[in-house]
Amino acid sequence: MAIVVMKFGGSSVGDRARMRLVAQRIVARKRTGDDVVVVVSAMGDTTDELIDLALEMHATPSAREMDALLATGEQASSVLLTLALHALGASAIALTGWQAGIVTDDAHRKARIVRIDAQRIRNALASGHIVVVAGFQGCTRDGDIATLGRGGSDTTAVALASALNASVCDIYTDVDGVYSTDPRIVHVARKLSHISYDEMLELAHLGAAVLHPRAVECAKHNAVALVVRSSFRDVEGTIVKEEAHMEHGVLVRGIAYEKDVARMSLLGVPDEPGQLALVFVALAEAGINVDIIVQSGVVDGKADFSFTISEADVDEACDLLRRMQPRVRYADVTCETKLVKISIVGAGMVSNPGVAAQMFRAISEQGVSIKMVSTSEIKVSAVIDGAKWQACVQALHTAFGLDASEVAFVGGPSVRR
Amino acid sequence: MAIVVMKFGGSSVGDRARMRLVAQRIVARKRTGDDVVVVVSAMGDTTDELIDLALEMHATPSAREMDALLATGEQASSVLLTLALHALGASAIALTGWQAGIVTDDAHRKARIVRIDAQRIRNALASGHIVVVAGFQGCTRDGDIATLGRGGSDTTAVALASALNASVCDIYTDVDGVYSTDPRIVHVARKLSHISYDEMLELAHLGAAVLHPRAVECAKHNAVALVVRSSFRDVEGTIVKEEAHMEHGVLVRGIAYEKDVARMSLLGVPDEPGQLALVFVALAEAGINVDIIVQSGVVDGKADFSFTISEADVDEACDLLRRMQPRVRYADVTCETKLVKISIVGAGMVSNPGVAAQMFRAISEQGVSIKMVSTSEIKVSAVIDGAKWQACVQALHTAFGLDASEVAFVGGPSVRR
Repeated sequence: MAIVVMKFGGSSVGDRARMRLVAQRIVARKRTGDDVVVVVSAMGDTTDELIDLALEMHATPSAREMDALLATGEQASSVLLTLALHALGASAIALTGWQAGIVTDDAHRKARIVRIDAQRIRNALASGHIVVVAGFQGCTRDGDIATLGRGGSDTTAVALASALNASVCDIYTDVDGVYSTDPRIVHVARKLSHISYDEMLELAHLGAAVLHPRAVECAKHNAVALVVRSSFRDVEGTIVKEEAHMEHGVLVRGIAYEKDVARMSLLGVPDEPGQLALVFVALAEAGINVDIIVQSGVVDGKADFSFTISEADVDEACDLLRRMQPRVRYADVTCETKLVKISIVGAGMVSNPGVAAQMFRAISEQGVSIKMVSTSEIKVSAVIDGAKWQACVQALHTAFGLDASEVAFVGGPSVRR
Repeated sequence: MAIVVMKFGGSSVGDRARMRLVAQRIVARKRTGDDVVVVVSAMGDTTDELIDLALEMHATPSAREMDALLATGEQASSVLLTLALHALGASAIALTGWQAGIVTDDAHRKARIVRIDAQRIRNALASGHIVVVAGFQGCTRDGDIATLGRGGSDTTAVALASALNASVCDIYTDVDGVYSTDPRIVHVARKLSHISYDEMLELAHLGAAVLHPRAVECAKHNAVALVVRSSFRDVEGTIVKEEAHMEHGVLVRGIAYEKDVARMSLLGVPDEPGQLALVFVALAEAGINVDIIVQSGVVDGKADFSFTISEADVDEACDLLRRMQPRVRYADVTCETKLVKISIVGAGMVSNPGVAAQMFRAISEQGVSIKMVSTSEIKVSAVIDGAKWQACVQALHTAFGLDASEVAFVGGPSVRR
């Protein structure tokens, strides 16, 4: 008998009616004969409410205590979903993270799963139960409750699927699947039937928040087949699995974008070893995430270099760079904001050198100039002025043959844990 | 270094301000040099809200799942109180029931503590922490979360005090201590400095809901000294301990009452073995609690007997007795409602046979006749017509020399878990 893991996010169990719908889906799946393990997030805004409660008691609550508090959210939702299953006549039990045998490291608020002792789940499945596991949590070897940080429930589901040798891990969410680009921007965006782990990773990192990158990495590492699908509509989702199993010839699988990008440029930096390290170590220590870095050629012993950060970090980065001027000895610093990064992602482009050129042409045909470029084996990113970014996404979508024959489901991805 | 256990009920941690006050009290106690273990109930109405949530999903939620849900209430409050302690600069950690080593039997919703593995608490105390334990919960030997039922947090506190050989177990509540009678009825009710376990048990069972009888029994069995005191006012409380250590000569320690009592009478029951058992087994199986039972002498092979129940159970009891008439073959059944049971309690009365007579005289002087009587070694109860019960309580309070020289703190006891 095959084991399937079904994961439902917070918005899928946000109220009683939704929880009952979810319970019906689970029971229907169980009726097909598979053993079913369910992973569930906290209901709706529960986690934010718990965080607020903690902040009322302490401005910087201890991570260990926060974990014990936050874990109650998933513990409660796993019980309530189990009761909804009972109400449908199904045999089901709720397990907390520690009861499910999920052992983590000691990094509270962002713990990693180190091991799953799945015997209790196996026993419960053997007794005919649907097993409902509280997502996002585990237990350290010292017996402390730890939460897994962002993407935690997705990661719980994938790790359980791996530990149980599940045939598939279904990630139920409030969108139908993974789209070729954001359907809110391009109404002919196409739902993808397949995507590789690496493509999904690039898209996930680039802001298509359907599936947390960490869970995708875990799935890739353990070769767990994922399906992203709707909690509420019974339609085909998107299968995320290894490239080798998939159709060839698809150059670009999807188009992602990131708004509110800023470009900082340091001009006239002495070409000496360690100057770049000085700057980027300082930025990292200040918690400022640097994305694309471009260095120009050296002229007269001086170099210019540029990097992108989030607009939210611009003030802090400017302060920091000004304070570092005596040590870095750059001539000038400039900053541009309101930029957008557009990326095309596809495993097929690794063997097609013309893809980047095709992308640049499509953008230039919109009368938009490209400020920075970054490439990986399966991705090309271009940073452009933000004024016409939507037109560029649409043009790229058409240029790479992604337009569907009908208008896509319109609904934004949700932020998830 | 002595260990003290401090237990705070739901109303004591009902909101942020109260939780901060409680944290201050705990820190002050810690500063005296003792090791401090705190037991805390769920905040305010949390438990009722969780029960409502569960009932929305299932009309008769499974006890195992309910326990996992209800336990989140105390888990959350233990964390929030710990954060409040951190905010005061104290070193503290929160532990759930299972982390605190509280092992229970499998009787979900009303589990009993079978063992406490206190090593984790001892280690935390040795590290200088205040240890905040979630009350009302433990873990079965199979690793399921179980709750202890009514009086659960009091019982957690007493059991921990016993396991840790604590010098004292302070039960903080919303009244100042145990009173000679209800201060809402008798304004000169006196706060007792001492009371024995047995006296406290009689008073607790009789409706003085300051301390759960189960916790008192546990304290008596393990010789744990209890102190009932106010969460909010720094005044002396009431010490509950073994009689041998206490002053002699106190005839009546306190006066309790119970309203809404009904008397059922079965008339003309054949005097055959097993007739009473028939009736009372059936009542017990229907969940109807019978208190006082009185049988008259046998005349012509027939007996009358009467018993008291709660008014809320009268309809069900009448139905049941009517259905049993063919088997029990009684001649008639009558029912009186709106009765009140008044009890005087005191360990000293065991060697003073005149106490009951003194009680009956005081009641009759109010022009009230006594319908039923029940006695134990340390208690005399009288069931009277409800019309003048308050005057009777006042008269008894005066007659047994309990009136204080000043008006007592006025505030009702709270229902607790």
